[in-house]
Amino acid sequence: MINKIGREIPKKIVGIKDVKPFEGPFVLKPDCRRFGRRVTAGTTSESKILRNIEEAIIKTGLKDGMTISFHHHFREGDFVLNMVMDVIAKLGIKDLTIAASSLNKVHEPLITHIKNGVVTQLITSGIRGPLADAISNGLMKNPVIIRSHGGRARAIEMGDIKIDVAFLGAPSCDAYGNANGFNGNSFCGSLGYAKVDAEYADNVVMITDNLVPYPNMPASISQTDVDYVVVVEAIGDPKGIVSGATRYTKDPRELLIANYAAEAIKASGYLKSGFSMQCGTGGASLAVARFLKEIMIEQDIKASFALGGITGQFVEMHEEGLIDKLYDTQSFDLRAAKSIGNNLGHCEIDASFYANPFNKGCAVNLLDFVILSALEVDIDFNVNVITGSDGVLRGASGGHCDTAAGAKMAMIVCPLVRGRIPTIVKKVNTVVTPGETIDLIVTDRGIAINPIRKDLIEKMSKTNIPTFTIEELQEKAEKITGIPEPIEYIDKIVGVVEYRDGSIIDVIRQVK
Amino acid sequence: MINKIGREIPKKIVGIKDVKPFEGPFVLKPDCRRFGRRVTAGTTSESKILRNIEEAIIKTGLKDGMTISFHHHFREGDFVLNMVMDVIAKLGIKDLTIAASSLNKVHEPLITHIKNGVVTQLITSGIRGPLADAISNGLMKNPVIIRSHGGRARAIEMGDIKIDVAFLGAPSCDAYGNANGFNGNSFCGSLGYAKVDAEYADNVVMITDNLVPYPNMPASISQTDVDYVVVVEAIGDPKGIVSGATRYTKDPRELLIANYAAEAIKASGYLKSGFSMQCGTGGASLAVARFLKEIMIEQDIKASFALGGITGQFVEMHEEGLIDKLYDTQSFDLRAAKSIGNNLGHCEIDASFYANPFNKGCAVNLLDFVILSALEVDIDFNVNVITGSDGVLRGASGGHCDTAAGAKMAMIVCPLVRGRIPTIVKKVNTVVTPGETIDLIVTDRGIAINPIRKDLIEKMSKTNIPTFTIEELQEKAEKITGIPEPIEYIDKIVGVVEYRDGSIIDVIRQVK
Repeated sequence: MINKIGREIPKKIVGIKDVKPFEGPFVLKPDCRRFGRRVTAGTTSESKILRNIEEAIIKTGLKDGMTISFHHHFREGDFVLNMVMDVIAKLGIKDLTIAASSLNKVHEPLITHIKNGVVTQLITSGIRGPLADAISNGLMKNPVIIRSHGGRARAIEMGDIKIDVAFLGAPSCDAYGNANGFNGNSFCGSLGYAKVDAEYADNVVMITDNLVPYPNMPASISQTDVDYVVVVEAIGDPKGIVSGATRYTKDPRELLIANYAAEAIKASGYLKSGFSMQCGTGGASLAVARFLKEIMIEQDIKASFALGGITGQFVEMHEEGLIDKLYDTQSFDLRAAKSIGNNLGHCEIDASFYANPFNKGCAVNLLDFVILSALEVDIDFNVNVITGSDGVLRGASGGHCDTAAGAKMAMIVCPLVRGRIPTIVKKVNTVVTPGETIDLIVTDRGIAINPIRKDLIEKMSKTNIPTFTIEELQEKAEKITGIPEPIEYIDKIVGVVEYRDGSIIDVIRQVK
Repeated sequence: MINKIGREIPKKIVGIKDVKPFEGPFVLKPDCRRFGRRVTAGTTSESKILRNIEEAIIKTGLKDGMTISFHHHFREGDFVLNMVMDVIAKLGIKDLTIAASSLNKVHEPLITHIKNGVVTQLITSGIRGPLADAISNGLMKNPVIIRSHGGRARAIEMGDIKIDVAFLGAPSCDAYGNANGFNGNSFCGSLGYAKVDAEYADNVVMITDNLVPYPNMPASISQTDVDYVVVVEAIGDPKGIVSGATRYTKDPRELLIANYAAEAIKASGYLKSGFSMQCGTGGASLAVARFLKEIMIEQDIKASFALGGITGQFVEMHEEGLIDKLYDTQSFDLRAAKSIGNNLGHCEIDASFYANPFNKGCAVNLLDFVILSALEVDIDFNVNVITGSDGVLRGASGGHCDTAAGAKMAMIVCPLVRGRIPTIVKKVNTVVTPGETIDLIVTDRGIAINPIRKDLIEKMSKTNIPTFTIEELQEKAEKITGIPEPIEYIDKIVGVVEYRDGSIIDVIRQVK
């Protein structure tokens, strides 16, 4: 089957119930009921604490072929996934699907579990490091299913992902299961991705290194969703969980991009009182936010909300009264992680509230603009954030396609080229976000506006920002880098990129 | 069928899918999945506001035979139910089931809608006033189904109640549906009962008289659950919604009961640091809480949480550091209603978190003691809080049977007699709470301890509280009042009392 953006999609994909080719960002409509987890009457004793992870695995009845889930709020500092998988492997359980909100370099030990048949499928937003390399080189029989943050929440709520057991690390937890992410040695801030798992998994095991007295309120994860609590020595390495204060970029190219981006936003008309935004955490994105802040102060403009992964920069703007509310699915640094427990206006939201296209109204729907990054953008404005120029898995879908679809203006900030690698290309390796939802590409050489946005073309024509067609930018890039050697793939599909609505937008093949 | 407490239960009851006679408070176990509401993709426009209630009813597709729901957070000040029902009647829709969290005197106009066939079944926690009288006198063909607060949440989560449209009044709401109960002219505090409806109803219509700028955060009801917003002039009469400051009783009989109750709690061993409690709002209950406060200060005892309907008295104790957290499903007075938006430790909880026996652990499970009222208690310790001495509906199930089942010590405070009406009787008219879950009866003439609580009998024997068997108390009452004339009923069943687990504990017949 050929989908709307011209990608060949197989009729059958292991792990996808009913393969639907991508037909456009707003075409598919839901026609079902929400998935209901198994109803269980909780213990009336005061403690759900078990001796160890092994006991929890046994009590949940985890068996061959089941699906387990993890969250990625501990980023590269996560101990939980590896710890649990080691016990599962020891118990001889096989053929599991791991539905993680994302996977990181730290999860390299999964390679062994995959080789040994303990894990046979992965569902994730992103994948990096040696595990990603191995998968791109054919490690797994079944393809990795890549879902966006909104798409994952949708899939869980609609039962496309049925989680048998969720193993959820918690920086603070009481004996009855109330947990949050803003207290304790392993604090990470928001537990926005974990919240969805807790509500829909048949069994929920909280794993904590910080057992606190009952009641641990306010709680991000509720006792009403938790079966068992396990206390371990450490759930993560704080150094890998939260980064320290954000440093502002001094890279002149990033500053140039940021300057064009801020100018473009100013010219777009979206920067007015009551506006809303999401910014990335790359050097250019953070610099854009800084420039926007200056304009906001100068022109006395206040934002109604900032969304997404929240940074200390946004917390500062919130505390200064420049942003009314922060919607936080994932706290990106120390300051954000600490703020969420203290600022009433810093609201923890789950991934469904953030970006699920099939609830009654997620936050991205109300975004005025979003600033996103890209590994590649093509002349149809399609964006790749998941495979590198070598065709190997190396990124994450994240909220990219969700926010692009929701925002009134989705802006990509990226350098025209990275070393000898062009960012603007004729055809991206892998499409994560369809060009139809991307409005503006901002590079260090100038910007390109999606021709469907005639209004923006008109507005940008009144600025001094160098403006080109996307084809012109692509040619400029090619002039610098030359025509890159095509990546050689073999037929085997190692990854499937699901669009947020559950349709298949692209597949990723094994590299030669 | 005869159930465990000896009540005759019919095999078929309209509105109950599968009639199960009550077999004991902890016998039934769930074996199903949670109900899933219809999945709908919310509007990506910024407003869900419709012109009026009529437009909302039409947009939701409300049809004959469907189930609609309301909350009772506005108590006797509620305008929403009557307002919506008038429009529904005008539109000619018939044969509706109303699943309200409770019904009050103010809902008398339902009598007309019932007579006209607009409403053919009621599901509620309680019912009062002319509507209750009319029903007890045979107004309806189908019985009213009485559910406890925990039982209602359970029934909704398990799909025993399938809500087609929830019409939820909101003291503050933004255009995208985020709502809370602590701002606005019609503020009521917690929206704990409404939260469950919002999460499980196929269609959710917010009705507000206080449209606020987006985002209305923190929100008790989320935009992700809301289809439409309707702005009206007034959703309630503030005078009927929240009562002012609580006055302490000066009634010597209530003070005597309270004194015995406080002494009994002190002697029970449950009053120690980290304890938890729920108290009622009657004069005696409030006085008990006041006496407990004195003991707590004197002995430096701090509570971990107080639960239930929260009063200003508990807010005061929280602010003074005597109670760590308040779990609030329903704010009982002005001070409580205002506190919930301001005190981080004053936590809004939904009815499922409060008392649903079939989630993974509700709050009542962790209660040390609860102080409850009663219309009647019988020599098996069964409690009636729903029908008067004339057999007519006049109360509410509330959290009575939920907290009694959950608490380590469930204490009833009541006068031995009320005028010429005995409170302690041989057999209560209607059983709401089974005697097996009641530990202690405290009257102005002394206390009676459930013989299954040998430990409490032992402990109370060391106090100076006059202690009797329940039979002795019953005889004392009878000596004062004489043997009351038996109530004359006819066969027709006008009400069914469901126990929190979904089994049928009693039925209510039409009075002659």
